Amino acid sequence: MKQFAVIGLGRFGSSVAKTLYNMGHDVLAIDSDEERIEEMVDSVTHCVQADALDEDALKALGIRNFEVVIVAIGKDIQASILVTVMLKEMGVKCVVVKAQNDLHGKVLAKIGADKIVYPERDMGAKVAHSLVSSNVLDHIELSPVHSILEVVAPDFLVGKSLRQSELRARYEVTIMAIKRDGDILVAPQPDEVIRENDILVAIGKNEKLRRLERE
Amino acid sequence: MKQFAVIGLGRFGSSVAKTLYNMGHDVLAIDSDEERIEEMVDSVTHCVQADALDEDALKALGIRNFEVVIVAIGKDIQASILVTVMLKEMGVKCVVVKAQNDLHGKVLAKIGADKIVYPERDMGAKVAHSLVSSNVLDHIELSPVHSILEVVAPDFLVGKSLRQSELRARYEVTIMAIKRDGDILVAPQPDEVIRENDILVAIGKNEKLRRLERE
Ligand SMILES: Nc1ncnc2c1ncn2[C@@H]1O[C@H](COP(=O)(O)OP(=O)(O)OP(=O)(O)O)[C@@H](O)[C@H]1O
Ligand SMILES: Nc1ncnc2c1ncn2[C@@H]1O[C@H](COP(=O)(O)OP(=O)(O)OP(=O)(O)O)[C@@H](O)[C@H]1O
Ligand SMILES: [Ca+2]
Ligand SMILES: [Ca+2]
Ligand SMILES: [Ca+2]
Ligand SMILES: [Ca+2]
Repeated sequence: MKQFAVIGLGRFGSSVAKTLYNMGHDVLAIDSDEERIEEMVDSVTHCVQADALDEDALKALGIRNFEVVIVAIGKDIQASILVTVMLKEMGVKCVVVKAQNDLHGKVLAKIGADKIVYPERDMGAKVAHSLVSSNVLDHIELSPVHSILEVVAPDFLVGKSLRQSELRARYEVTIMAIKRDGDILVAPQPDEVIRENDILVAIGKNEKLRRLERE
Repeated sequence: MKQFAVIGLGRFGSSVAKTLYNMGHDVLAIDSDEERIEEMVDSVTHCVQADALDEDALKALGIRNFEVVIVAIGKDIQASILVTVMLKEMGVKCVVVKAQNDLHGKVLAKIGADKIVYPERDMGAKVAHSLVSSNVLDHIELSPVHSILEVVAPDFLVGKSLRQSELRARYEVTIMAIKRDGDILVAPQPDEVIRENDILVAIGKNEKLRRLERE
C-alpha cells in the first residue's frame, strides 16, 4: 500500500483519486471547493478542504510524507506551477502534474515536476484515431512504427482460419488474442477460424495494421 | 478522406480536431469563443465562430453533410445535450459527445448520442494504474478480467529465458512482444532471454499480470 495525495478534484483528479483508493491505496484528497470535497468523502481515505497555495496548510497535512502527490489543478496555471514548486521544495519525491498545454508542461518540467500528463490532449488523439476507422476499439503505440490494435474482425477475414488469412506470412501482423462471446483466446492456433463479431488483438507495423481497419 | 466537424475547442476538442486534420481528413472546427478560433485557424480545414445552440448557423454550415460530428462542449452540460439533440434531429449519422459525468452520459445515451467519451475519467484511471506500479507504461483492458500490459522487465525475470520464467506455464501470462533497443521482437521464442531494460508486452488475467508489476 502506498500513500498518495491528490490536489484538485476536477474530473481528472477525482478519477485518479478514486481509482487509487479502489486499488487499495491510502488517498488524501484536497480541494479548495467545499462541494468537491463533499462529493468525494466516501470515495477516498481522507478529504480536506484547503487552498493548496497555503503552505502552512499543506505542511499541517504532512504532505512531505506522501510518496506521490498528484497536482490536478486545471485552469489556474499559476496555482498549478506554484504548488508544484512548493511540493518539490518540501521534499516530496514524486510530483505528478496535469498540464493545460505545451508551454505549461515545459515550465513544469523546468521546475522539477517528475511526471507531466496531458489527459485531454492524449485522449483527444486516441478518440480521433478510433473515429477514423469504425472498427478500431483501442490501440497502444509500441514505437513510432509498431502498434497493438484491438479491432472488430473485418468482413474479408470472417470464415477464414488465421493461416488462410495470411496476415502473418504476408503482412507480418500477428493476432495475439481473440475476444469472442466475453471469453479471451490467448495466442490462438493457426487453424482457428475467425468468426463474425470476433474482436482481434493484433500486433505489427502501423502501415500493415491499417489493412485491418475499416473506413 | 472523411468529413468531420468538431464543436467546442477546449483541450479535448482541439486535440481531436488537430489529430484528424493531421491524419489527412477534412475538419470543420466550431467554437463560440473567438480566441479559440484564432488559435486553431492553421490546424484544421475550416474554423468558424458560432454558437452551436443557433440551429440556423449549424444548418448554414451544412452540418448534416458531415459523417461524424464531435460535441466537445465541456462545462455547459445543457448546451451539450441540446446540441446533440439538434444534430440527431438534423440527421447527422454519427454524433460523438464528451460527457462530464455519469448522469450526463446517461442522458446523452437516451437522446441518441452514438458514442460517449469520458476523457478525464478514463485518463485518470490510466494514470492511477501507471503510478501504482513504477514499471507499467501502458495497458489495454480487454475485458473486466483480461488486459495487455506494457512493462519494463522486472528484475526477477532478467537473465531468464521465457521458458525459464514459467510465466506461460504457471501464470498463463503470454509475452507477445519484447521492445529492445528501439526494435520490436514479435511473438518471441521460448528460448529468448529477457535482458535488462527490455520492455515486455504481456497478455493475461489482471490478477496474474500483477506479478509483473513493480511497486
Ligand atoms: N489553489 C487551489 N487549491 C486547491 N484546489 C484548487 C486550487 N485551485 C483549483 N483547485 C481545484 O482544482 C480542481 C480542478 O480545476 P479546474 O476545474 O479548473 O480544472 P479542469 O482541468 O477543468 O478539470 P477537469 O478537466 O479534470 O475536470 C477544481 O475542483 C478546483 O476547485
Ligand atoms: N454553445 C456553444 N457553442 C460553441 N462552442 C461552445 C458552446 N458552449 C461551449 N463552447 C466551447 O466549448 C469549449 C469547451 O468548453 P469547456 O472549456 O467548458 O470544456 P472543458 O470540458 O473544460 O474542456 P477541456 O477539458 O477539453 O479543455 C470552449 O472553448 C467553449 O467556448
Ligand atoms: Ca470554499
Ligand atoms: Ca478537462
Ligand atoms: Ca460572436
Ligand atoms: Ca475568451
